Amino acid sequence: MSDETESPTYVDEGKEFTRDTNYIPDRITRDSEEWPVEPGRYRLIAAPACPWANRALIVHRLLGLEDVISVGRPGPTHDARSWTFDRDPGGVDPVLGIERLQEAYFARFPGYERGITVPAIVEVATGKVVTNDFPWITHDLATEWTEHHRPGAPDLWPADLREEMDEVMQRVFTEVNNGVYRCGFAGSQEAYEAAYDRLWTALDWLEERLTDRRFLMGDRITEADVRLFTTLARFDAVYHGHFKCNRQKLTELPALWGYARDLFQTPGFGETIDFEQIKAHYYVVHTDINPTGIVPVGPDPAVWEKPHGREALGGETIAPW
Amino acid sequence: MSDETESPTYVDEGKEFTRDTNYIPDRITRDSEEWPVEPGRYRLIAAPACPWANRALIVHRLLGLEDVISVGRPGPTHDARSWTFDRDPGGVDPVLGIERLQEAYFARFPGYERGITVPAIVEVATGKVVTNDFPWITHDLATEWTEHHRPGAPDLWPADLREEMDEVMQRVFTEVNNGVYRCGFAGSQEAYEAAYDRLWTALDWLEERLTDRRFLMGDRITEADVRLFTTLARFDAVYHGHFKCNRQKLTELPALWGYARDLFQTPGFGETIDFEQIKAHYYVVHTDINPTGIVPVGPDPAVWEKPHGREALGGETIAPW
Repeated sequence: MSDETESPTYVDEGKEFTRDTNYIPDRITRDSEEWPVEPGRYRLIAAPACPWANRALIVHRLLGLEDVISVGRPGPTHDARSWTFDRDPGGVDPVLGIERLQEAYFARFPGYERGITVPAIVEVATGKVVTNDFPWITHDLATEWTEHHRPGAPDLWPADLREEMDEVMQRVFTEVNNGVYRCGFAGSQEAYEAAYDRLWTALDWLEERLTDRRFLMGDRITEADVRLFTTLARFDAVYHGHFKCNRQKLTELPALWGYARDLFQTPGFGETIDFEQIKAHYYVVHTDINPTGIVPVGPDPAVWEKPHGREALGGETIAPW
Repeated sequence: MSDETESPTYVDEGKEFTRDTNYIPDRITRDSEEWPVEPGRYRLIAAPACPWANRALIVHRLLGLEDVISVGRPGPTHDARSWTFDRDPGGVDPVLGIERLQEAYFARFPGYERGITVPAIVEVATGKVVTNDFPWITHDLATEWTEHHRPGAPDLWPADLREEMDEVMQRVFTEVNNGVYRCGFAGSQEAYEAAYDRLWTALDWLEERLTDRRFLMGDRITEADVRLFTTLARFDAVYHGHFKCNRQKLTELPALWGYARDLFQTPGFGETIDFEQIKAHYYVVHTDINPTGIVPVGPDPAVWEKPHGREALGGETIAPW
């Protein structure tokens, strides 16, 4: 946290939390004139602490894009202005040469006033941010960069499932991914209780759905799993206590907990999870709900390595490569 | 909460939490000239939300003292000045005729400057507080009021166990009863982490001790169980999240969880527990660690009614009367 700037606030007193979902809408595509797919041209900036950025880290890894799109990782905390590269040598991203991600936003839009969010993709040569539109970032990594995927990379957006996936992902987004924030940043008891009910209604639906399905869409891992996983990975460490999503811990929901561990133990998933950074992010940044800034020691992450038993449901996981 | 007074603070920045353990040291005893045992003379003031007061409610009930010592129950929240009788008709204790417990303290000590705490015993005729020294309150109910105990009342301070009980209760007090507060009110990350380690060292000791003992001192329920129980009853509802005692939930510690349910289901214990008041107390009163005042909906208290299986360890519980 910087002493130079005021702490941002997340809770709007008396109100329900609403997320600003206006992002820079540019996309990197095969046929784009402005931002074409091109190895070495872009850098993905993604803080491991952030669930939206975590999606991009998983997809990038599953698809084996390390040699065509490099990755910069801001630290877990940020000030009112920006995510920062405080964990890099000298506090500077080694490729972009900047201290604050804000600089890449300003390079393209001087005085940019919306949130300086991750994930963001930056054009290396100009240092300009291209996009921070996270749902499209992972979509386009999977569908536009196919030529550069590793051999055997999974198809995370199978055409035959696309329609149902969109429905499932929409519900997971509004009710779960964003639903935990709606609990944590509720500005009144009433808004919190409504948010809590919405969240648990959705988690009960997922618990039932995953009781006889190995993965969200059935037998294969898809983008829908990536999106649910990054919220589940943070559930007991952060959302249960910090956001008061405390009907149960994830570990008390048998299907969801087995499913979450199954993914965690799949190459490309667990390796992107850093529980220390995750906890530091939420507990330090949200000073209006945790003014002491004290970060809990628990829970013990060793439980994530326990056998999940989900092989019994069949389906096809992702093999090491 | 009152708007008239500033919110009290519980966290002392940079410091370890230390409890003020200076209470009004008077005792009600058989041989006391000033405060003799005498049916109808005293009123026990005990907020169900407060763990220290909860002890007195359990002991009073187990011993069947309803007809000799009446009970007044302040609501779960209080302001900087006092616990209040906000849940009684007209906001007034029906026997003492006061709105704030502070009035009974002031009646005896005008301008009393220490905490207005529960449990407290008040002399009905004069409206003066006699004592708020909670460890002695339950001790004396059990050992000085024996003539007025119900038939078949348990001996909560068996002479043959007294020495070991004192040692166990001392460790439970400093490491667990007060240990959870040391975590929650830690003024620095370092103080919190030290407090967390102390707490879990003690809980591991208790988990082991209770694996082959039905109750803390062996085969019988004693005051030591009452004292541990009131902290365990609040653990998942409050201490796990609000005080960051989150290595595990109580429900994840098999011996302690079975033991806690065994007591909860014993007459005189569970009936004194009001989870709504407990949560309201901590989450509303401690504005410096929960500034929004939002009270979590979870966890579901229904789990407390599940079979505990502790009968297999033998021992003698307390039969309904």
